[in-house]
Amino acid sequence: MNRIITISRQFGSGGRTIGREVAEKLGIPCYDRELINQIAEESGFAKEYIEEHGESTENSGWLAGAFGLDYTEFAGQSNQDKIWFAQCRIIRELAEKGSCVIVGRCADYILKDEQDLLRVFIHSDFDIRAKRIVEQYGETDDAPEKRLKEKDKRRAAYYQVYTDQKWGNALNYDVCLDSGTLGLEKCADIIAKLY
Amino acid sequence: MNRIITISRQFGSGGRTIGREVAEKLGIPCYDRELINQIAEESGFAKEYIEEHGESTENSGWLAGAFGLDYTEFAGQSNQDKIWFAQCRIIRELAEKGSCVIVGRCADYILKDEQDLLRVFIHSDFDIRAKRIVEQYGETDDAPEKRLKEKDKRRAAYYQVYTDQKWGNALNYDVCLDSGTLGLEKCADIIAKLY
Repeated sequence: MNRIITISRQFGSGGRTIGREVAEKLGIPCYDRELINQIAEESGFAKEYIEEHGESTENSGWLAGAFGLDYTEFAGQSNQDKIWFAQCRIIRELAEKGSCVIVGRCADYILKDEQDLLRVFIHSDFDIRAKRIVEQYGETDDAPEKRLKEKDKRRAAYYQVYTDQKWGNALNYDVCLDSGTLGLEKCADIIAKLY
Repeated sequence: MNRIITISRQFGSGGRTIGREVAEKLGIPCYDRELINQIAEESGFAKEYIEEHGESTENSGWLAGAFGLDYTEFAGQSNQDKIWFAQCRIIRELAEKGSCVIVGRCADYILKDEQDLLRVFIHSDFDIRAKRIVEQYGETDDAPEKRLKEKDKRRAAYYQVYTDQKWGNALNYDVCLDSGTLGLEKCADIIAKLY
């Protein structure tokens, strides 16, 4: 059976970097931005649109929340719901194809009935993340603190709507790690060794 | 500087066993039931009373919550508040005495300003814990499910009152581990290696 590692992460916590390192250590693929391309192909939406709307909610995506993982197409789906259903299909297909690391996109929830799943959550202090997003993504007109707060709020709301679970609750994961106090390298080590 | 590992844990998750194993691996003391003895000595309450009231609230312990870690003695303290203040003093003394593992009793919060602190949270599925408490503590008149639910509720309320933080929120810990999916031995290994 395929062994899947899902990495949920706070914006700016380095979860994506950790995911790539884990995948490299284990010699398995890491799906992250590749997912966006596939969802774009499947759903017909532009990559930029999916990047913006695929992990954060604007209170429009209530449908999938109400119907769970039922893939039936509805008249009246919001764009966000359409992206969600495409995302579910693609993540399930990837998990069936072979062992892999999947970063973000509620993969922990979408694959929750897979037997061999290691669900990881990466977080770190606000200040450390604020510094990191400037290093990684550069400055914008908005202060990094504002960008973080906005993204945290939207990601938590998105997760809640589509999974009906609370974002950041330790009980939903096998391992939660503070990448700020432990360091990215140590986090990747722990996860790879647990595989 | 002393290095302190605090282990918060859900009832029945095996956190105490993990704490002892970590301490043994590292050759440092593990404070758990020893703490109760010391709190009993300091506060004058019976051990059984502290065991029953020292980690779960009955809505009487609002004072320490309101005043945080201020150790001043008040007229009108509830018994639970008295235990809390004794507990704070003893945990701080132990942390100053030398490196150690401390299980439970909000030590993560009480020591949060210590620099070299590894804050761990251990949890596992309800069913696994229900089975474990019967193995560990035997049967009682109440069904294990009822005992667990009661204890979970009271521990969460206690933590909330005295620390003003949400119990089980991954953000409050350096490492959270599911002892049910990972196994006690692996949890102890990870923690010891992070030390």
